[in-house]
Parts: sequence; structure tokens; C-alpha cells
Amino acid sequence: MAEDFVSMRNIEFLLYEVLDAESLCELPYFSEHDREIFDMVLETGLRLGADELFPVLAQMDKEAPTFNAGTVTVAPVVRELLQACGEGGWIGAHASFELGGQQLPDTLLTMVRFILGAANYSASVYPVLTTGAAQLIGSFGSQELIDTYVPPMFEGQWQGTMAMTEPQAGSSLTDLETRAARTDQGYFLLTGQKIFISCGEHDGADNIVNLMLARIEGAPAGVKGISLFVVPKLRPTAGGGLEPNDVLCTGIYHKLGYRGAPITQLEMGEQGDCRAWLVGEENHGLRYMFQMMNEARVGVGLGGTAIATAAYYASLKYARERHQGRPVAGKDPAAPQVPIIEHADVKRMLLFQRAIVEGSLSLIAYCAKLIDLTHAGPEEGRAEHALLLDFLTPIAKTYPSEMGILSVSTGLQCLGGYGYCDEFPLEQYYRDARIHPIHEGTTGIQGMDLLGRKVTMQKGAALALFLTRVKETIAEAETHEAIASEAKRLSDALAQLEQVTGRLVSLAGEGKVEVFLADATLYLEYVGIITIAWQWLSQTIVSEAALAQDADNPDANFYLGKRTTCHYFFRYELPKCAGLATRLLEADGLTATMDPALFED
Amino acid sequence: MAEDFVSMRNIEFLLYEVLDAESLCELPYFSEHDREIFDMVLETGLRLGADELFPVLAQMDKEAPTFNAGTVTVAPVVRELLQACGEGGWIGAHASFELGGQQLPDTLLTMVRFILGAANYSASVYPVLTTGAAQLIGSFGSQELIDTYVPPMFEGQWQGTMAMTEPQAGSSLTDLETRAARTDQGYFLLTGQKIFISCGEHDGADNIVNLMLARIEGAPAGVKGISLFVVPKLRPTAGGGLEPNDVLCTGIYHKLGYRGAPITQLEMGEQGDCRAWLVGEENHGLRYMFQMMNEARVGVGLGGTAIATAAYYASLKYARERHQGRPVAGKDPAAPQVPIIEHADVKRMLLFQRAIVEGSLSLIAYCAKLIDLTHAGPEEGRAEHALLLDFLTPIAKTYPSEMGILSVSTGLQCLGGYGYCDEFPLEQYYRDARIHPIHEGTTGIQGMDLLGRKVTMQKGAALALFLTRVKETIAEAETHEAIASEAKRLSDALAQLEQVTGRLVSLAGEGKVEVFLADATLYLEYVGIITIAWQWLSQTIVSEAALAQDADNPDANFYLGKRTTCHYFFRYELPKCAGLATRLLEADGLTATMDPALFED
Repeated sequence: MAEDFVSMRNIEFLLYEVLDAESLCELPYFSEHDREIFDMVLETGLRLGADELFPVLAQMDKEAPTFNAGTVTVAPVVRELLQACGEGGWIGAHASFELGGQQLPDTLLTMVRFILGAANYSASVYPVLTTGAAQLIGSFGSQELIDTYVPPMFEGQWQGTMAMTEPQAGSSLTDLETRAARTDQGYFLLTGQKIFISCGEHDGADNIVNLMLARIEGAPAGVKGISLFVVPKLRPTAGGGLEPNDVLCTGIYHKLGYRGAPITQLEMGEQGDCRAWLVGEENHGLRYMFQMMNEARVGVGLGGTAIATAAYYASLKYARERHQGRPVAGKDPAAPQVPIIEHADVKRMLLFQRAIVEGSLSLIAYCAKLIDLTHAGPEEGRAEHALLLDFLTPIAKTYPSEMGILSVSTGLQCLGGYGYCDEFPLEQYYRDARIHPIHEGTTGIQGMDLLGRKVTMQKGAALALFLTRVKETIAEAETHEAIASEAKRLSDALAQLEQVTGRLVSLAGEGKVEVFLADATLYLEYVGIITIAWQWLSQTIVSEAALAQDADNPDANFYLGKRTTCHYFFRYELPKCAGLATRLLEADGLTATMDPALFED
Repeated sequence: MAEDFVSMRNIEFLLYEVLDAESLCELPYFSEHDREIFDMVLETGLRLGADELFPVLAQMDKEAPTFNAGTVTVAPVVRELLQACGEGGWIGAHASFELGGQQLPDTLLTMVRFILGAANYSASVYPVLTTGAAQLIGSFGSQELIDTYVPPMFEGQWQGTMAMTEPQAGSSLTDLETRAARTDQGYFLLTGQKIFISCGEHDGADNIVNLMLARIEGAPAGVKGISLFVVPKLRPTAGGGLEPNDVLCTGIYHKLGYRGAPITQLEMGEQGDCRAWLVGEENHGLRYMFQMMNEARVGVGLGGTAIATAAYYASLKYARERHQGRPVAGKDPAAPQVPIIEHADVKRMLLFQRAIVEGSLSLIAYCAKLIDLTHAGPEEGRAEHALLLDFLTPIAKTYPSEMGILSVSTGLQCLGGYGYCDEFPLEQYYRDARIHPIHEGTTGIQGMDLLGRKVTMQKGAALALFLTRVKETIAEAETHEAIASEAKRLSDALAQLEQVTGRLVSLAGEGKVEVFLADATLYLEYVGIITIAWQWLSQTIVSEAALAQDADNPDANFYLGKRTTCHYFFRYELPKCAGLATRLLEADGLTATMDPALFED
């Protein structure tokens, strides 16, 4: 049932068996929908991915966007895709009926984005960015902004972007310098420069709508003086037309991968006429942007998972077809060679990939359901869902991104020399996947977010909630014989996590902030492993129940595969916690106190 | 003192302070040489790397070799390089005076290859392959073969290759099918196909000399029926000229990286006139090839180290120059931003890289000295040196290859978004480095070699010798206060390694060979970490002694940097052994027994 790049069986397993996505239809916001509609949406997404996006994967890489005199030319499929997404209602699918959307749950749409991302990550970025930008206008913009911008964005005619980074302010948003000068015309005049703006200019859309951070003249220094603006490439005229808005694309980057999407540099206000419309209140820009950013971070994790999933299926296919070598215990050269999937080390490499991609997807889908419940669940539970989502966001961004790279690399390794060559897609996946630990906040930033903010916020309430949820899963898993040992292992790991976290937080209490945060990246890696172990337990509880109910289950191999992959995760991945805990407990501040002069040579 | 891609200070440290390479000149074989000559060789190597190879690094990547009608066109620098290497005596530098060489120690030449590889890995491969092929003819070929082929190879006019892989026999040499038919003309007639042959055809040399494995008609099945042949692209005629030898290049691969060197497909005997000259005895080909192969494997580790080293220095330079963010404990937005090298997480990423690249280079140089002592040391010690070298070879191949990838990736991460773009060399290093776990025997093959052969051979004598050497180093380290704790940690890790190995070997004793070898790759990773910890201890013993002798040492920062990096390795890398040991001790055969049908979906 696996396509070349994705398994619909696994998607349905997570959606319907693990997360019970149908139950969302009991909520008023989603009450117009049912399983039939969900299935249709998935099927349409699959056809778009399989028929339109996957076939141009290599081509979009080889014929990357080109830049010429301010204009970026992209593959023709981009315009077709944006139009198809507009016509199919994909771009506004999550938005309210009021805003012109379809009120479909994010849990479902995440799976569609996953399918499209696995088919062709670069292509999938165009509509997703547009969704995020339009949502931001929908949530915080004036009615006039909404009326002007949201419809053509939802229709796939206009591209949306998120424009934050500047040359002197990569990860440091405090240092943004783009300036907005007041006018009495209802808009601001912008001057400044943005870099690394995905899809900030291209010919696959009729207009580009940048959601851009800037400082209004006289605003406070630092992040408290940042406002959010709509800065279109072309601005609507009184007569209903469009005219240039003094936003100049000055170049694009030549990148390792992710080449199907142009990453641009933008220069605003060179001619003193770049008009910007304030979204929401002055100086609250970062808060608004973070609504989009947090979902974008889970989206990056999804992208990492998607690429690694496609790589997994490509390597699985190869491992089944390629004959090479013989069993260790029977090396008769006269015997025929066996498919390499029969070698233990190849099975290990496939299990590693499956453990990462299915564990990651499970976490991402879980987060998507939290997003739905935060937006549309019963009022009394929303704060708790939001809290857990906040805690999980840096993990959902980072684990699939970092481990996705290793997963793709392992897929490439399964193909030996062929993995290194462009006859197979693995080398492209390997290049594409490397972006994820970088964009939307590097892994280092995510580590600081988890340990420095999420663990300590609300007196540790988010962490406590996370621990409670994991313990609930453990208790349930203990009742299934095949994973009782795994339940015990996770329980032990969790006890150690509490010890490690206590040690680190006590350092913060002593005012040793530098030492407290020095290994935040390792802490994130550590919590990430435990989180994915939890997700594997959740999945396997469901698959064990299915097996228990019907031993002759026609899906027995699928469920037994879940069990084996769960065992794999707990025996090969979870033990990595020991080394991380040792290091984190030592907390000697080695890197915090080291004099950079010792790198002299 | 660091160049853009390499540190001469560190090379001299390893060569003269750690390994006492000068002492090699006391051996008869190297007695013509001294420190002055060594320094001159290093300086010449550095100039070649810095002035000729490094400047064309990106260009050779972007303008990769092209294939047209059997001919491969490479960058003009390749011919210049081969000529320069020929004129400088580099290609035959290690060979005996008798063979036309210079009798320079491999310990020294390894450092030269390291410099060239760090400057431009693809370019460095051409002369290194030629050296290996010529050595093979020199060691096992007839005088006629030597006279015909070795001089033009040493002079850099003819390219040497190692031609093993076939389409149906990637890692499985048992299944080689290229056929050699006897004639009464002193040569064989070859028919067959080879793939993935590095530099198997190009216009930077006047001829290509393939050292090729094939089966003589009637030879036994399997590896016992493989012979080694010289198969030139152009064969010498009676009149002193050259004529085509029916070796056709049928294509080249388009690769992820390592693009400056062409990887070719060769077809032999299409016209029934591909002549091949036997090297040594019939059916002993694999043994001969493995002389070259073993050194080639250490050479792959060297390549991995070289690329990762260049990436380290590129990221170090960036980290010093790029200003971004502020100290965790002092986030005043009005304060100027600091160089990112001041952030703990960036220091961690730089220490990770330094720990890997300098630890790997230390191991490779140690192996090179073993090679020298095996060839030219006092007779009575040779067997022991050879034994230890045998044990260390899969580790020296794999640790720098696998960890080199992570090291380069970490270097890329230091640059954030810029690391992903081709304005900086990191993205190329990231692509180039990925070849190393694949060629000259994949990591999986190396794991089987270490656990399945090296650990058990001679009743465990190689492992015992390794343990003895490590314990000697530990005993010495205990006397230095700054690393006494590290000595203890390694001692504990070693005890656990003995336990793990005992457990695994007992499985083999019980006949459970599949389970015994199922996690050989993990065992290799595990022993690799311990080996590099040992190398860090060796280095730091020397740097501590230097610091103890002279507290005002002008090189104090270099030595203190060694100490800090050693501490880093023991606190961040060595703890990874705990998780690996846990897994290896469990030894439940999960992957060996898993039914591949469970990957169904």
C-alpha cells in the first residue's frame, strides 16, 4: 500500500486508529465534516502529490529558479500547483468559513502537507507559506486588509511570505533594523533589507504578499519595538489595479538543496515609496508573528519527516530489489545472492529510518491535534492543550529535522555507491533535508527555547503536563505483554529526565544562567528521544490492541512491523539517553567558560 | 598559524611531538632523511595545496568532468597537478630508491596527502590512486611490468586505478565475473564490465593503468579464484608507441559531491582484444589487492579527516568574524552584538569538530607510523605492528568517515543559513564528505571486518594488543593532573569494552553467528569512540608535558586548547559508549531474526 514516497496505510493508522481524528467532527467548528470527507481530502492530496509533484522532483532541483533583473523565474508547475491548491480550497482549508476557508482540522491537513512534502518538498512550500501568511492577516489584520489580501491568497493567485531575517540579525530578532515611517495616508513607508526570504519573489504568482517585521520610528529598542506589516510586491490602486510597491528582489541564494523554491533578498524603499500596512497593534509584531512561527516550526518538523519518509521508501524499494551477498552463516559462492533486505545490517538501517520517520510523524500529528483542540476544542481544555503544544513545539521542530538528516543519510547508505549518484533520489533528499535544522530558528535556538523558556515557564507546568501524559501512556502500555518491557524502560528514562532537569533548573536558581543553558542543545536532543519513545509506545498500544482483537488480522504484518520498530527504538535509540544524561548531570560549564582564544592555532 | 583549510601547527605537533617522526630516520630505510627534509616536504605540500588546489576547489565542483563518446574531460589543473606531483617525486615518494622512489616515510607523506586532501579532496585523489596502483605493480609485478608501467606512473604521466566493483558485485567480491582467457602471447584476453572506477578515464593523463580483478577461465568459484591484472587503456607496442587496448569508458556518474574526480564505468573486450597482464600468481589477486586496499582504507579515513578539517577552519573563521546576539546573562539590546564564537553552543560546535578532526588525524598518523614500522622497522617488531595496524584499519577508515560527516554538518550549522549556500565552501564539503562511508568498503563491511575477523583472529591477539597499548597510555596519563580524570574514564570504558566483547565472542562460540555479527556496525562505532579517546589522551600527555616544562610557553593557547578539546571529548563523546554497550550487551538478534515481510505496508 506504500506509494513510492509515502504510506497511506500509516497515515490512516495515525489519523484514525491512534488519534481518532473522526472525533474532531463532534466539535462545533468541524461539525460539517466526516470520515468520508477526510478520506476524499487525503485521496485528492495523494493524487496531487503522486501525479503532479513527485514527477517533477528531480527537474525542479536541476532547473532551479533563476534570477534576472529583479525577477525570479520558477518551474511552470509552481503556478499550476498554486492554482490547483487555490481551486481545491487547500490554502484556506483550515480557515473559518467566515474568512472563506473550509474549517478542516489541522490534524487532517497536516497529513496532506506531509504527502505533498514527501512528494516534493520545495513545491509544497509555496502553498504552505501562503496559508500561514493569510492566516496571520485573518487573525490580526483589519477588515480592509483581510478583504484585500486574503481572497487572492486563498485562491492561489498571490504568494504569501514571512519576512523576518536581516543581514545583521540572523537569529537575533532584537537587532532588526528595517524602519517604518508614519504617514497620514493609512500606511507606513518602509526602508530596509531582508534576506533568506522563501518565495519572496517569483513568477508563479501574480503578486507577493510579505508579512514583514519592522520598527516604527521611535519604537523601543529590542523585541518590544517590532511591528508587523503587510508589504506587497504590487499594491492595489484606487482603480482596482496593481502597481509596483518599491520592493526590489536583489538576488537569490544558490543552495545545497531545497532548490525548487527561491530564497530571496529583498530591498524595500529604495525609491522612498515602499508602502506597508500595519497588522494589529504597534510593537506587538513579534507576538503575532510567533503565532505563525510556532505552527511554522511544527511545519519544519513535518518537512523533515516528509523528506526522510520519501527517502525511507526509496531505500526500502532498493533493498528489496537489489541482490547482493549471502547469509553470514551460509557463504557458498555457488548459491545465488540474496536481496539485501535479508542482511541484518540492512534491516537495522531500514528500522532506524522507519523508527525515525514514523515516530516523528506520530509526534507531528499529535501536535496538529493539539492545534485543533487549542483552536476549536472545549473551552475548558484549551489552555492545557496550548501549554503542551508550547512544550512540544521545539521538539517537533528539531527531532525530525536533525534525525531526519541521519535517516536520509542511512537511506542513502542502503544504496551504496548508487546512493551517491543522481540516478536515485537519495542524494537529492540528502541535500534537501539539510535545511531543516537551520530555518525557522536553528537547533541551538530551539534548545534555548525548550530549556530556557518552556521547561521553566509557569513554574514548570508545561514540563509537568508532559510528564503526566507520558506516564499515562506508560501505564497503558504496561498492560500489553509485547511492550511491557518498553513501558518499564521509558519509565526509568523518565525518572532520569526528572533528575537531570532538576539539576539543571537548580543551576538556574543559583544564577548560573550560562552554565544552565550551555548544553541546551543536548537537553533538547535528550527530551526528543524520550518524546519519540513515548510516541512509539502510543502507536504500539494501538497496534497491539488490533492484534489482540484479531490474530488473523489481514494487516498483521503492518502491526507486527510497528511492534518490531517500537522494539528497535527502545533498544537502539532510547539507550542514547544514558550518555546524554551523564553529560547533562555533569554540567561543568566547559563550553560556557572556555576562552575562545584557545581555538588559536 | 592555521591556513584557510589546515593547521600546520597541529601537523607538526603530531609529527614531531607526539609521534617523534624524526626517529624514523634512524631506521636504515629512511636514513637518508632528516627533519630538514621533512619540513621542506611539508612546506612544498602546503604550497601546492594552498596555491594550486584550494583556489580551484569550487570550480572543479561546478565544472565537473564531462563524458563524450568514450572520453572524459577533466579540469586542466589535473594535468598540471599530476605533472607537478611527478616532477616533485610525490607519486613514488614512499617507494624504494630501487623502484625509482624516494624512501620517505608514510608518516610524513600521510601529512602531505592530508594537506592536499584538505585543500581539494577530488584533486588529491588522482596522484594518490596512481601511487597505490604503482606500488602494487612494484610489489607483485614482473620486472617487465615494473619497467613498463612504474616509471610513467611515478612521473605523473599515466594515471593508476583500482578496478574491482562490478554491477552484480558491489560489496560481494565473491561474485566478480570479469573473465580472463589465456593466450600464448604472455597476456590474457579480458571481457567484462567494471563500475564505480575512480579516474578510470580522463584527459589529464596520457594513459590509464587499471589494476583490475578478474577470473581466469577454470578458476575456482568465489574469492579464491580471483587474479590481479594490469589492464591499460593504451598498451605499449613493439615499436615503443601506444595503441588502444579495447577498454571503453561507457559513462560517468553524476554524483552528490567529490565531483572533481570522474567515477567511470568501463567495458573490456568488446572487440575481443582487451589484453591483460597477470600480476603475481594466478588466483592470489585478492590478497595482493588487499595490500593496496588496506592502505586505501586508511586513506579514506584520511580523506574524511581532511574534508572535515577544512570545514572546521572555515566555520572557525566565520564564528570569529560574524557578530550576532549577546551573552545569555546580559541581553541589553543597546549593547553591541558579540562574535558568535563567544556563545557556548557555538564553542560546543567548534569543539565537536576539533575533537573529531584532530582525534582522527592523530589516529591516521599513528596508523601511518605503524605502516612505516611494518615495512621498515626492526624485524622483530614488525609482526606486532602489522597486527595492530590490521585491527585499527576498519576503525581508521570508518570513524573519520562517519564522524567527519557529522563534523562537516556541524561546521555548516555554525554558519546558519549561509552554511546552506554556495557563497561559503561548507555546502560543498558536506556533499564531498558523504562518499567516505561508502567507498573502499562500506561502514557495514568494516564492522564485519572488525568484529568478525580482527577481534577473533589469532585467538584475539590483535584485540589484546590494542588493549595493552591503550592501557599503557592510560597509565601515563594518570600522572598528569589535568587529565587524570580522563584516564580513569577511559579505564572504565575499556573494562566495559572487554565485557561487551566477551559477551559477543561467546555468542560466536555458541554458533550464533548471525546474532554475533548483527550489530557489528554498532560495535565498530563503539570501539571507534574508545580509540579516539585513546588518541586524545596520547596527544594531551604530550601537550601537558610541554605546559609543565614551560608555563610561559608561547604555544600555551595551542596546548591548553588540546587540553580543553580532550576534556570535551571525554565529557561529550565518550559517554556515548554507555548506550552502545547497553545495546551490544542485550544482543537479542532483533535485526537478525526479523522477517523482512514486516516492512510491508
